[in-house]
Amino acid sequence: MDVWSDLILPEFLGTMMLLLLGAGVVANAILPKTKGEGGGWLMINFGWGLGVFAGVYVAFSTGAHINPAVTFGIWASGAEEFAPGIPVTAANGFWYVTAQIAGAAVGSALAFLAYKKHFDEQADPAVKLGVFSTGPELRSYGWNFVTEVIATFTLVFVVLSFGNSPVDLGPLAVALLVVGIGASIGGPTGYAINPARDFGPRIAHALLPIKGKGSSDWAYSWVPIAGPLVGGGIAGVLAGAIY
Amino acid sequence: MDVWSDLILPEFLGTMMLLLLGAGVVANAILPKTKGEGGGWLMINFGWGLGVFAGVYVAFSTGAHINPAVTFGIWASGAEEFAPGIPVTAANGFWYVTAQIAGAAVGSALAFLAYKKHFDEQADPAVKLGVFSTGPELRSYGWNFVTEVIATFTLVFVVLSFGNSPVDLGPLAVALLVVGIGASIGGPTGYAINPARDFGPRIAHALLPIKGKGSSDWAYSWVPIAGPLVGGGIAGVLAGAIY
Amino acid sequence: MDVWSDLILPEFLGTMMLLLLGAGVVANAILPKTKGEGGGWLMINFGWGLGVFAGVYVAFSTGAHINPAVTFGIWASGAEEFAPGIPVTAANGFWYVTAQIAGAAVGSALAFLAYKKHFDEQADPAVKLGVFSTGPELRSYGWNFVTEVIATFTLVFVVLSFGNSPVDLGPLAVALLVVGIGASIGGPTGYAINPARDFGPRIAHALLPIKGKGSSDWAYSWVPIAGPLVGGGIAGVLAGAIY
Amino acid sequence: MDVWSDLILPEFLGTMMLLLLGAGVVANAILPKTKGEGGGWLMINFGWGLGVFAGVYVAFSTGAHINPAVTFGIWASGAEEFAPGIPVTAANGFWYVTAQIAGAAVGSALAFLAYKKHFDEQADPAVKLGVFSTGPELRSYGWNFVTEVIATFTLVFVVLSFGNSPVDLGPLAVALLVVGIGASIGGPTGYAINPARDFGPRIAHALLPIKGKGSSDWAYSWVPIAGPLVGGGIAGVLAGAIY
Repeated sequence: MDVWSDLILPEFLGTMMLLLLGAGVVANAILPKTKGEGGGWLMINFGWGLGVFAGVYVAFSTGAHINPAVTFGIWASGAEEFAPGIPVTAANGFWYVTAQIAGAAVGSALAFLAYKKHFDEQADPAVKLGVFSTGPELRSYGWNFVTEVIATFTLVFVVLSFGNSPVDLGPLAVALLVVGIGASIGGPTGYAINPARDFGPRIAHALLPIKGKGSSDWAYSWVPIAGPLVGGGIAGVLAGAIY
Repeated sequence: MDVWSDLILPEFLGTMMLLLLGAGVVANAILPKTKGEGGGWLMINFGWGLGVFAGVYVAFSTGAHINPAVTFGIWASGAEEFAPGIPVTAANGFWYVTAQIAGAAVGSALAFLAYKKHFDEQADPAVKLGVFSTGPELRSYGWNFVTEVIATFTLVFVVLSFGNSPVDLGPLAVALLVVGIGASIGGPTGYAINPARDFGPRIAHALLPIKGKGSSDWAYSWVPIAGPLVGGGIAGVLAGAIY
Repeated sequence: MDVWSDLILPEFLGTMMLLLLGAGVVANAILPKTKGEGGGWLMINFGWGLGVFAGVYVAFSTGAHINPAVTFGIWASGAEEFAPGIPVTAANGFWYVTAQIAGAAVGSALAFLAYKKHFDEQADPAVKLGVFSTGPELRSYGWNFVTEVIATFTLVFVVLSFGNSPVDLGPLAVALLVVGIGASIGGPTGYAINPARDFGPRIAHALLPIKGKGSSDWAYSWVPIAGPLVGGGIAGVLAGAIY
Repeated sequence: MDVWSDLILPEFLGTMMLLLLGAGVVANAILPKTKGEGGGWLMINFGWGLGVFAGVYVAFSTGAHINPAVTFGIWASGAEEFAPGIPVTAANGFWYVTAQIAGAAVGSALAFLAYKKHFDEQADPAVKLGVFSTGPELRSYGWNFVTEVIATFTLVFVVLSFGNSPVDLGPLAVALLVVGIGASIGGPTGYAINPARDFGPRIAHALLPIKGKGSSDWAYSWVPIAGPLVGGGIAGVLAGAIY
């Protein structure tokens, strides 16, 4: 196994695709004067779900984690490999997560470039940040954390149950699951359910020269990291015990 | 067969996933200040359909009934097994239904926790109940019953016809069918089409400490139990005669 | 082959399912006080597409025509069988079409029963008819006919091309195609693309005791019969020449 | 290989189907007095995605490029065949692209015929052009070009990664990817992501006798040609290096 071409590059590109389409659909829905302005929550859910769809194809050879909560959940389930041919080691875990965060940052930057003129139109800095990172509708770190735990538990536990079924839908199954989680449990916090999806773009938001940008809201940033890791960990332990 | 690990636990977890996503999407659509507020009926249909999708994977080893009307319809069709390795007996039927009701109650409670702050915002007790249980738009026990019979007949009869086709879409087929039934026949009563889906969360609504909650509307509760059982039974008998 | 159990019953039940879900979603979208009132065109497209999905499973053994334009298109393509084991004969063609029309009538009547209380609420007779049969937004028999020809050509030609691909999605492929045709070419006439889908329910509308109903608009009824037959015939001849 | 029946005809018919459904859904959404008027961006995304779905079945034997950017990307990836049995040669590339442009023009003309009465109703020439060709919401040739590069890179790179996965969804995978790209990156320019999709219909718009039509906006026409070719080329080179 070559760690660069067999692990880092696929995970980087897969998470990049996820964020390009995911941040993109939010930009389309909430920035001014786009074709999809006001397109609604279901459109956003499909954009993210199909971002997962694209990302999973691109990162298929690494098991397409594209999410540290999945990497962590697999570790917590006691599995011996992160993906066929990739043993569970601390070093591999580190490269998975690093590639995911970097890919997410770059993907959100590409979405920013695609919507550059619409960012320039938008006056409200909070809306600009909303394209990059998640934020709660009703701020309550405790309950927001609970929501992220529940949503990510659902993601990781169901993904780990896919092997139960003889029907293999592959990337489509994960994509539809993410559409469902977004529609159903995404209402309070915007469903990070993936620390890299939130942390990488938050770094990109802080670094990019975005006209009229405001705070990157680092005070909230631990919630979409800790919640998904706890939810994914619980799912991994439970799935490891049952399956 | 171990009744706990091979029957009760999968059915419990599968129905829990169904209600977590199903009650969740209703919460997202009708509670105040969520990201999906006013997301519309099609979003609700996808949330429930994908709740079925997730639940079927989790409960695959028990045939993924996650619905007493399916269990009853299989019994009515004269089949010898509820699922491969699980014979049709009164005891197994009892454990199926009990696990389904308990799982539905717990799933709706998890959705309540995920949306806790939004429940606190909502003043109208009827909206709060609407996240847990179904209720008709035009109350008429007779016609509401007819609607539930027709909708559940459709669900169970088509599910029992899936074996006709050599193409096996597995959980996706049931999920899409439920999206269609919701969009098409769900308008009058909110498509329980599953006694556990309605009865379990109604119990949860009665027990949970929900701020400002009102009646659990037990007067209506027989409709989403009796209608689905009658519809599922008719479908089972008809499918047993034809297939 | 037993013509009753191997041809008439499956086609009847399949077309019944199509209209139950298809007429149902229109009722949900346009009748007053439903959960899906104002649900929009895409919801209607999914309802019809998933009605096809359900109907194709139920009628799988007859090749799931559930549409005289498909039966006619297969005849026009010069095939020897309507479905495996069902030879192309005038008698079989007659039973296909008769079962389709009867099934469509009964399916729309079931949708009427499911929405009975909402039909009673609705004052406008044109809206009530709209649940059963198609009608153009801009009445022009010639151009409405052209629209139905183009839409049905698309349906039948693409269905006849499914065999080109080694990937067999089965009922899902037809369902998605119908979602697409509805979204794309359904705007002017409401996409009958199926003579039985329009004619059967129009008979049901004329016969059923619907409170406050108006004309069944027989003057338009030839368009959604002739247009689909011509479009399906052209598609059959073209596909027969190419494939 | 017969270039007419094995290459030109399938590509022509496939791209015709793409534009019939694609231009059709835009007509339905933006022309006056259609059933789908104001149907929203997600409906438009599904219409185009399912146009791809239909087109891929029809053009399966040619690898279903139905897009010069795909043909160009395959050439750039260094592959030896455009599709099984069709070698990469300049002549074959020429016939691919010519058939695509002609098919796109004819498909958009069919959509025009299906919506003829609604075109007659519409006063604004820009809306009429919008059914045929793409146009940016905020005109900036440079940034519009960037958006098309990014969107087409996504399309071609992910399509070239499909072979990584053992699960073969066939035409459904491309269709869903296009739904996602439209929802996510289509907001600024309307996602041509296909030079034929824009250039063919623009020719049709210039030639057809459309009541009250205005300019065909040739000044913009290079963007949806150059952007997709550059994006597809980058994707091809990158995929050729990695896979």
